[in-house]
Amino acid sequence: MDTYRAVEVTGSQDFRLVDRELVDPDPNQVRVRVEYCGICHTDVLAAEGMRADPARPIVPGHEIVGVIEAVGPGVRAWRTGERVGIGFLAGHCGECDPCRRGDFVSCRDQEQTGTTIDGGYAEVAYARTSGLVRVPDGVPPAEAAPLLCAGLTTFTALQRSGARPGSLIAVQGIGGLGHLAVQYARALGYRVVAVGRGRDKEAAARELGAHHYVDSTAQDVAEALQALGGAAAVLATASSGASMGPLVAGLAPRGRLLVLGAAADPLQVDTGELIIGTRTVQGHLTGTPVENEDNLAFSAAQGIRPSIELFPLSEAPKAYEHMLTGKARFRAVLDATA
Amino acid sequence: MDTYRAVEVTGSQDFRLVDRELVDPDPNQVRVRVEYCGICHTDVLAAEGMRADPARPIVPGHEIVGVIEAVGPGVRAWRTGERVGIGFLAGHCGECDPCRRGDFVSCRDQEQTGTTIDGGYAEVAYARTSGLVRVPDGVPPAEAAPLLCAGLTTFTALQRSGARPGSLIAVQGIGGLGHLAVQYARALGYRVVAVGRGRDKEAAARELGAHHYVDSTAQDVAEALQALGGAAAVLATASSGASMGPLVAGLAPRGRLLVLGAAADPLQVDTGELIIGTRTVQGHLTGTPVENEDNLAFSAAQGIRPSIELFPLSEAPKAYEHMLTGKARFRAVLDATA
Amino acid sequence: MDTYRAVEVTGSQDFRLVDRELVDPDPNQVRVRVEYCGICHTDVLAAEGMRADPARPIVPGHEIVGVIEAVGPGVRAWRTGERVGIGFLAGHCGECDPCRRGDFVSCRDQEQTGTTIDGGYAEVAYARTSGLVRVPDGVPPAEAAPLLCAGLTTFTALQRSGARPGSLIAVQGIGGLGHLAVQYARALGYRVVAVGRGRDKEAAARELGAHHYVDSTAQDVAEALQALGGAAAVLATASSGASMGPLVAGLAPRGRLLVLGAAADPLQVDTGELIIGTRTVQGHLTGTPVENEDNLAFSAAQGIRPSIELFPLSEAPKAYEHMLTGKARFRAVLDATA
Amino acid sequence: MDTYRAVEVTGSQDFRLVDRELVDPDPNQVRVRVEYCGICHTDVLAAEGMRADPARPIVPGHEIVGVIEAVGPGVRAWRTGERVGIGFLAGHCGECDPCRRGDFVSCRDQEQTGTTIDGGYAEVAYARTSGLVRVPDGVPPAEAAPLLCAGLTTFTALQRSGARPGSLIAVQGIGGLGHLAVQYARALGYRVVAVGRGRDKEAAARELGAHHYVDSTAQDVAEALQALGGAAAVLATASSGASMGPLVAGLAPRGRLLVLGAAADPLQVDTGELIIGTRTVQGHLTGTPVENEDNLAFSAAQGIRPSIELFPLSEAPKAYEHMLTGKARFRAVLDATA
Repeated sequence: MDTYRAVEVTGSQDFRLVDRELVDPDPNQVRVRVEYCGICHTDVLAAEGMRADPARPIVPGHEIVGVIEAVGPGVRAWRTGERVGIGFLAGHCGECDPCRRGDFVSCRDQEQTGTTIDGGYAEVAYARTSGLVRVPDGVPPAEAAPLLCAGLTTFTALQRSGARPGSLIAVQGIGGLGHLAVQYARALGYRVVAVGRGRDKEAAARELGAHHYVDSTAQDVAEALQALGGAAAVLATASSGASMGPLVAGLAPRGRLLVLGAAADPLQVDTGELIIGTRTVQGHLTGTPVENEDNLAFSAAQGIRPSIELFPLSEAPKAYEHMLTGKARFRAVLDATA
Repeated sequence: MDTYRAVEVTGSQDFRLVDRELVDPDPNQVRVRVEYCGICHTDVLAAEGMRADPARPIVPGHEIVGVIEAVGPGVRAWRTGERVGIGFLAGHCGECDPCRRGDFVSCRDQEQTGTTIDGGYAEVAYARTSGLVRVPDGVPPAEAAPLLCAGLTTFTALQRSGARPGSLIAVQGIGGLGHLAVQYARALGYRVVAVGRGRDKEAAARELGAHHYVDSTAQDVAEALQALGGAAAVLATASSGASMGPLVAGLAPRGRLLVLGAAADPLQVDTGELIIGTRTVQGHLTGTPVENEDNLAFSAAQGIRPSIELFPLSEAPKAYEHMLTGKARFRAVLDATA
Repeated sequence: MDTYRAVEVTGSQDFRLVDRELVDPDPNQVRVRVEYCGICHTDVLAAEGMRADPARPIVPGHEIVGVIEAVGPGVRAWRTGERVGIGFLAGHCGECDPCRRGDFVSCRDQEQTGTTIDGGYAEVAYARTSGLVRVPDGVPPAEAAPLLCAGLTTFTALQRSGARPGSLIAVQGIGGLGHLAVQYARALGYRVVAVGRGRDKEAAARELGAHHYVDSTAQDVAEALQALGGAAAVLATASSGASMGPLVAGLAPRGRLLVLGAAADPLQVDTGELIIGTRTVQGHLTGTPVENEDNLAFSAAQGIRPSIELFPLSEAPKAYEHMLTGKARFRAVLDATA
Repeated sequence: MDTYRAVEVTGSQDFRLVDRELVDPDPNQVRVRVEYCGICHTDVLAAEGMRADPARPIVPGHEIVGVIEAVGPGVRAWRTGERVGIGFLAGHCGECDPCRRGDFVSCRDQEQTGTTIDGGYAEVAYARTSGLVRVPDGVPPAEAAPLLCAGLTTFTALQRSGARPGSLIAVQGIGGLGHLAVQYARALGYRVVAVGRGRDKEAAARELGAHHYVDSTAQDVAEALQALGGAAAVLATASSGASMGPLVAGLAPRGRLLVLGAAADPLQVDTGELIIGTRTVQGHLTGTPVENEDNLAFSAAQGIRPSIELFPLSEAPKAYEHMLTGKARFRAVLDATA
């Protein structure tokens, strides 16, 4: 019996490295030999039990890069040996109402990698072909991993921001998502302001392309944004409702606050501030596999690269802790080949 | 010295009927002999002092219909004798950044009728020509009044809702705005659900065109909307943040909560509910004068009519109290010709 | 051996009624017992040989209504006994670039009913499940048929027209598509002008909802449209490039000419007329199955009904000739149950 | 009597250097001391008489940079000494239907610089304040000139192209407009293909940022574009209808041909090619003054610079001839300070 190593967790951060049996992929599924898997804040859904059956051990991780090693029955468009990525959405059904409207992100029968099905803290992962992303040769696999979720989320958020070339874009939170958002925003021709807690990330943010930096512990962020003309869009990546609400007042007329990080506490907003200025608070989840391919190609062409720290599979708990406490500069990535 | 009667108020609901001196209009301004003026919930800004100088007496009212009786220097496109309307935005400057982008609603140097300048609880009103609305002969003047703000706000909100023909549209609050919103939504080919407190407005809502009715005191509104498939858009007209927040959970994927009524209490929303479903909370203020002309033409063509109760100018306090307590079915209108 | 009757044609209008063998549906396919099939101008692709292999007999027809009588392997979401429709696009692949972007109409591996695969001039038809449309009970099956292509095309064109409520919409050609376009445009709150050759369709056009009628043989259509304020959109349904080009001059600023009918002759347009006025000429093919379900629901709710003439299968050549010569008022439909 | 030098032309390319009397600006107008004026292909409207009164001498030129030296009555937002630009649209009326909708480019009472009113082949020009563009200090005045029309037109066209980051954008014609379009498209994150006649502009196009080059004299352009995946948008700058029509076949599904240059001959397009692929041919005129300010700021931030050749006013005929014959590399600019 062939086996592979995987890191399981139940809903209380109790990571365990186990051996699992290798099985054949189901119809319309592939089996992927994992090379790298990024560690995203959303992995708390698995590790802290915010899912259907928290006692059941699950393999977290949804920024997976690897190579197809087996294809299930009915698979036509994918071949063994191709390098692929798997993001948060592990494939859509094609038959529900949103899918029939082409809105795969809203699929009602979707699997979520590392949350409803096993993910990429492992040597092997499985996925529906509808969730696969082609990874081009030009992108180093370890760097591709964080682009598949942290990158995709911010890349597609910018496309839905309604901003014009030259508009002011604020990126709140300079971490896994934010350090990529700054780069995308710069490459798309926006004026970019990074918003962080304290000054220790300012130099990095400016090096990544930020034109301005606002320290939220020292300044009123909304006032600082208004002093720069008001933001056409704010990408809020910090998982804190309390920190997001006040950002609305920093928006220009018709501006949008894009909420990228789910928070435990609610977002509070003054209705008058929404109405005067015709402002919007807009949730944003992620993009589709083909948008991820756009993202990888765009990143390669524009020189957008995540800053990563590699950890072997066996050090998954440490890597997770780096992510959770904000120690990672800026993305912890598991190396399943080590 | 010629005079006209006007109802002034300082910021504590102390209405007084006074005589005012008739003056010539300023450059690019007209003087209008008022026929009718609707009473809108936003009149509380004047009557309850939520404005720059609450002790200064001001004439409230921004749903004004009347006839131009004098034009100021430089006026080219408007003539004495024309019937016109004046809504909340009493004209834009044309020179600020939003104006130069064609976004007159966001003008930074705008006057707001009945709030920053005197409004329509009077026999005479003044307005910049950039704020004037042509009122066609086919619309009875008394009925045109509520269309100019309650109508315009909901008509333009529906145009920004992103809904498709046949989509489910919910109208929360069946009052001055809501009773018109139901009619517009029906005329634009949507499935319409009215959401009210209690059952006493159900019959009226259905008669106005609602396909469904939800009593928010008896049902969980979000659940009721999801049972109907989820709302593509909710028009929230009730001035209560607490009642708006839970509506997000009633939206379909990509759905939008349109916030039309400013509330004293904040709107609270769960960020997870925004992200999963890619939902939006969107402030909406009003439309432009030319959109108001579209609105009047559309209303005439589709038979959309406000339900009004007329009061003479001298009974303005009573009319205001009808509005405030929800007694009006559905819009109190002052008759300045009486 | 079970058989069914079908009308085949090779590429020279030589219709033949034949018996065909009944087979089991392929994987992800269903077999439909046809009730009705509308006759569309696009059927000339089959009957006049504008397809890959004109000598091969094919069954035309892509406005099919019937009942599923067998489902192939792998079919999950559809059941025997359901009434369904099949339009021009007989299902998409789900795997090509446009499909992965949710643009199923642009699928690169699509089948086109009655052109690349057998269609609905028959007692039985086959289709991929991705091409199926649920037909609700409230819509009479014979009337549903023309809605599936003539209806869908014009319904979705209006949604891509960029027009505002109350905008002027022109419908050129009052035939199979046009007589439905007028009804949709009216139900969506537009001002509607019908453009036809001669006066004999004027009364019908007005009864269907047109506010204005322009006789293109007696008036310059562009001038007539400008006299009405300029069209926000023109739906050009007449298959004649020569008749479409001059319509551009009838558009309002930012207006769009939507080209719905493929013509043998090219469309000529003056570039100055496109640039001054910022006008657009926009091809439009059709919509998706779920948009067809929206369409059927909208039509039922708004009382939109095609005007049809029924013919038995054996009279398919006569029905086709009625379509081709414009004798049909307004849509010939084959009755496969007769 | 104070005078200034100006180059007049009647409608047969008969340029004359004359002295004109200096007058005070009209209300809401300014007088500008011209520094530079670019020479655009549209200047043929003046020089070749394609205007209302071709026998009347007019001063051509609508890419004007200079300094305000006098303001007319009523001017509030502009001051003597400010550096400003004047593009093709010399101000809008603010009162017509398009203006009231915020669509100033479609103003029905607009002046067109150098065509309906005197332009910038002169030491002095006059303009409505609604047509003025603020020129920031960071942009060299001589280089700002071509950005005001050649730049603005292509910059705004890209914003209306519907393309995604990473999409393939083709620029047809590598001249005054095209050499800027290539730079904008590159700076906005697109894949860029330049299309020119012959190979002599290939090196320049690649240096400006083009990823690919297609020689239209040696290759079928549509085939070459399809080999690259199909263009999301083609910016057609060559003033030739015959060369534009075939570009439609090079578009990806949902692609748009943007027509920027008015041609003497019509554009011919096959309706089937528009419909299959859902493609669009879209006229595009120019942008507004505030969009020009966005454009100047964006160009400065991204290092976008026109390539110019300077000529003194007295050599206007020679400069014009350079433009007309394609000798300019890539924009001839008059220097009124010389």
